[in-house]
Amino acid sequence: MTDHTVKAFDEDITRLRGLIGEMGGLAEVAIEEALASLVTGDKERAKKVVESDKKLDELEMQVDKLAIRVIALRAPMADDLREVIAALKIAGVVERIGDYSKNIAKRVGEIDGKDRFEPLTLLPAMGEVAAEMVHDVLTAYAARDPDLAREVIATDNKVDAFYNSIFRNLVSHMMENPATISSAAQLLFVARNLERIGDHATNVAEMVHFAATGVYPPEDDR
Amino acid sequence: MTDHTVKAFDEDITRLRGLIGEMGGLAEVAIEEALASLVTGDKERAKKVVESDKKLDELEMQVDKLAIRVIALRAPMADDLREVIAALKIAGVVERIGDYSKNIAKRVGEIDGKDRFEPLTLLPAMGEVAAEMVHDVLTAYAARDPDLAREVIATDNKVDAFYNSIFRNLVSHMMENPATISSAAQLLFVARNLERIGDHATNVAEMVHFAATGVYPPEDDR
Repeated sequence: MTDHTVKAFDEDITRLRGLIGEMGGLAEVAIEEALASLVTGDKERAKKVVESDKKLDELEMQVDKLAIRVIALRAPMADDLREVIAALKIAGVVERIGDYSKNIAKRVGEIDGKDRFEPLTLLPAMGEVAAEMVHDVLTAYAARDPDLAREVIATDNKVDAFYNSIFRNLVSHMMENPATISSAAQLLFVARNLERIGDHATNVAEMVHFAATGVYPPEDDR
Repeated sequence: MTDHTVKAFDEDITRLRGLIGEMGGLAEVAIEEALASLVTGDKERAKKVVESDKKLDELEMQVDKLAIRVIALRAPMADDLREVIAALKIAGVVERIGDYSKNIAKRVGEIDGKDRFEPLTLLPAMGEVAAEMVHDVLTAYAARDPDLAREVIATDNKVDAFYNSIFRNLVSHMMENPATISSAAQLLFVARNLERIGDHATNVAEMVHFAATGVYPPEDDR
């Protein structure tokens, strides 16, 4: 590439990274807002989460378009090309993380007798850990920081522990109060969605680690 | 591109499409095998589904590598580039469809009192429709057939109807037989996984339609 093309390429990469950072911020807020709406039963607030997901979809499309344009115009090679493809993939995963928050928000209003569910205090705590993973993995991406990426991968154990504890809690709750089964089933799905968000943040962390070091993190991190 | 490059590019695209076709075949079989193992409670059979998912992951990596190589070596423009990016994206979705089957297979052995669950006859029927969607959408991809893609999108309604009916059935089953709640919760997740497979097949169908016609299918198809 000529000096001019290199500079133009760097600007494009910076824009790609900026768009992904914006997606990450939206995804993080969506997790917290979805759970806040669930706990308060605030349907208006939940509706905003569902709407904000459209913005995430749009941003992903912008990343796709820009990535395709960069490849077509600048014909990047080796590491640079890998960086553009990583941006495409990471944007796809962040968009999916947004989908899970949307799914959680859609369940607001389907939970009767909220006060009786202990998981309604555990779920926001679980959501906080998941949102933190999303935040940290995008910080790791922005800073090309493989150590932070490995920390994110290690945190996924916490999310899994929350999931197992909430699952057991809900099943015994259902047994004791059969009338609440339908609501409890909705909360099971919420827990499952948060667990999947943790998995996806872990996937991104693996990509960030790979992009920064050329190798995937050791298996026992995962 | 020179004639030589054009020919080499066409060969690469054919290989990409072949790899994706192979992924689709594996994903389709995985859905059916996961449900067969669930219904029979055959853990060995379920283990094979979990193992076959690794093959899907490998194939996705092969698609990624080949796509990156094609872009780097042949520097395809416009439609050709879009075709390579579509291959990357579709491979990612098919890999995710495989993950859902793996999740189903992992629940085999966690269902007690199988004979009492009506959904254990509904789920394989639902799985058949989902597997058919995966099959048809990859046929549509191979044949660049937007009409078949729209049929796939329309079929997703059937999968959603199955899901709603199974959800209601399981919730009332749980209420009548609290002792089976834990098993029934596992079946809820199975139904949800199949519903997500339908969603992902629909996403691929939208990409195929877009690639073939340049426009997304009308909203009321979706």
